[in-house]
Amino acid sequence: MEIEIIAIGEEIVSGAVVNTNGAFLSRALGLEGWKVVRQTAVSDDPDRLKRAVESALKESDLVITTGGLGPTLDDRTRETLCEIFQTELALNLEVLSRLKTRYGDHVSVEDQARVPRSAHIFPNPIGTASGLLFERGGKTLIALPGVPLEMQTLFTQEVLPYLRKRYASVQRYKEVIHFCLLTESMLDPFLRELQEKSPLLDIGIYPEYGQLTIVLASLHVEMVRAAKEQLVNLFPTHYFKGERIEMAIHAWMLEHCKTLALAESCTGGAMAARFTALAGASDYFLGSLVVYSAAWKQKLLGVHALDNGAVSEQTALEMCEGLFKTTKADYALALTGVAGPTGGSAECPVGTVYLAFGERGMRPQLIHSVFKGDRAKIIQLATTHSLASFYRFLAY
Amino acid sequence: MEIEIIAIGEEIVSGAVVNTNGAFLSRALGLEGWKVVRQTAVSDDPDRLKRAVESALKESDLVITTGGLGPTLDDRTRETLCEIFQTELALNLEVLSRLKTRYGDHVSVEDQARVPRSAHIFPNPIGTASGLLFERGGKTLIALPGVPLEMQTLFTQEVLPYLRKRYASVQRYKEVIHFCLLTESMLDPFLRELQEKSPLLDIGIYPEYGQLTIVLASLHVEMVRAAKEQLVNLFPTHYFKGERIEMAIHAWMLEHCKTLALAESCTGGAMAARFTALAGASDYFLGSLVVYSAAWKQKLLGVHALDNGAVSEQTALEMCEGLFKTTKADYALALTGVAGPTGGSAECPVGTVYLAFGERGMRPQLIHSVFKGDRAKIIQLATTHSLASFYRFLAY
Repeated sequence: MEIEIIAIGEEIVSGAVVNTNGAFLSRALGLEGWKVVRQTAVSDDPDRLKRAVESALKESDLVITTGGLGPTLDDRTRETLCEIFQTELALNLEVLSRLKTRYGDHVSVEDQARVPRSAHIFPNPIGTASGLLFERGGKTLIALPGVPLEMQTLFTQEVLPYLRKRYASVQRYKEVIHFCLLTESMLDPFLRELQEKSPLLDIGIYPEYGQLTIVLASLHVEMVRAAKEQLVNLFPTHYFKGERIEMAIHAWMLEHCKTLALAESCTGGAMAARFTALAGASDYFLGSLVVYSAAWKQKLLGVHALDNGAVSEQTALEMCEGLFKTTKADYALALTGVAGPTGGSAECPVGTVYLAFGERGMRPQLIHSVFKGDRAKIIQLATTHSLASFYRFLAY
Repeated sequence: MEIEIIAIGEEIVSGAVVNTNGAFLSRALGLEGWKVVRQTAVSDDPDRLKRAVESALKESDLVITTGGLGPTLDDRTRETLCEIFQTELALNLEVLSRLKTRYGDHVSVEDQARVPRSAHIFPNPIGTASGLLFERGGKTLIALPGVPLEMQTLFTQEVLPYLRKRYASVQRYKEVIHFCLLTESMLDPFLRELQEKSPLLDIGIYPEYGQLTIVLASLHVEMVRAAKEQLVNLFPTHYFKGERIEMAIHAWMLEHCKTLALAESCTGGAMAARFTALAGASDYFLGSLVVYSAAWKQKLLGVHALDNGAVSEQTALEMCEGLFKTTKADYALALTGVAGPTGGSAECPVGTVYLAFGERGMRPQLIHSVFKGDRAKIIQLATTHSLASFYRFLAY
């Protein structure tokens, strides 16, 4: 089955909002063995939307749209879909009663209960815009609201069970492999060789800052498994389990019943946020001292090295030692650096990061890096690289 | 001028990577007064890519593609573009010499110096994939690499100056208005009225968690200015300057020469990361005590209320008071809550957040909220709502 996703709304086309709905749906459908072949974003201008929908219905079996179903004046999708599928808006008493029970006599409830007469309705568990399903000439279109949480809930609870019943999944076997501190070009020669040997193997390469994801897929289980083993054996100490590097540390800490504390300067809480985004982090993650000012470094961690500038090997080391003194953590990780755009110097340019980490009672390890990019990129690179270095220290 | 953006790559279509390049380019082009009318994402399968490019060249004057230009085996875009524009790959000695100077005799340098013979080359300031410009029948296609930082740098430094020279900007007047703690439906009746009175005014509504952005645009400066004034006067204490609520606090702190300290439990560093993402935060932001464990709350902030459970009004209050005792901050903001999915109870369900903030020497303000959603959503909502409440306290 071929699927196309259309994001509707000027906010997407104009770049005011990043289209995360497309990625969510593609991933969710891909996990079922269905293939999204095109994603499109258009404004809700009726002519453009009509052209996009007609083109999608021609190319694909199933079209899923997101957005444009709200009660506000710039949401004209319901009307346009009515024209395409030759039906009309009509008050749906079932929808109306559901919305009134939940929202009372709010002004937009009446409006949101007007749905295309011929459409099948997917009730929205957490919002006012119903999901709509249209059929025409053997092709199907499902319209979902654009607010990500609403779309995701409606899709997962209502639409996915419907699709599973209706379309049989094609069982392709898939393995996802994650490497840290490895670049695309380091792995590329081996992937080329692998592809030559196994032309029926689909190989996807997804580089991110500090980590690299390889997706292997095929109808042949053994081919995928053998390829995975081969790749992991090439770079065994770069391989980690879990989608993101912090998940590998999270699993390691839980498995070994150890605790972790952070001290962050230039990453400013970004590193702590990676761990605390994971459910269950409170079982090992004690906290992070985001010591952004020199006074805090001194007072909270007893750092003395501030005379030579806050960004130095010595500062990182003292921050790490300070964590062991101040807290009961088994492992500590401390980072100081210059995220820019100002504050750099000839000896310590923007992007300089000093990392110190280790186990209680052992001498901390020190890593000095210089990352390139703007402030956001440097913070992201410093975070991911530091976590990756720390994970390799723990695991290998 | 109508523009279309095509993101090329299985990683986008499959949902492994979110298409941030589309949003970046749309926004950057929109600021010049040019209009992106469609964004598409396709894999680099030659047939699909050809169809997408042909359809875009038919509909739009300028097509910009991102991705697929790398040296790895799944990047076939250069070959496909050669077929579409009837040219061929040839070693470009100028590109080769530039790449060799920067990267030495790396194996992929030779490959990346093979560019379509008829294309105009935009040199890549920070990577190996050159930008390519093709012309056919009065239409233009520009192909850029997919790694966001490379694409952005190449676009900003090389492509944008070229486009500015070649295409005159249409000067539409635009105002962007940001409100916090205001929902779409609260504003909608006023926007409908405004639209009825001013049919030539384009109104865009971009809701996000905890904030709402309204974009007003028109060829008539006065119409836009009057509409902005009217909207701001409707909700004056919800209005803030700056793209995100933390920017408004950032500006306020710098303007008033005050300092700020945070103590975070369930947001786990996410709130600190919002401030430290902004250049210049070190001038007022002292740091954040991410006290994720009860022991840290007690030791670092002197919280005693932990017997009644870590999540309570009293804990938030003591965290805030502890910040004033421990640090020299002029303003302090402390937050504790249950991000879930576990840890909730009947009296304190998942999503419960207690916020305490204030000025040194004054009694802290307390706010109790219950947010709905998954862990990521609750952390995001807690962060944005808390910052918004704090900003309204500062400014109004």
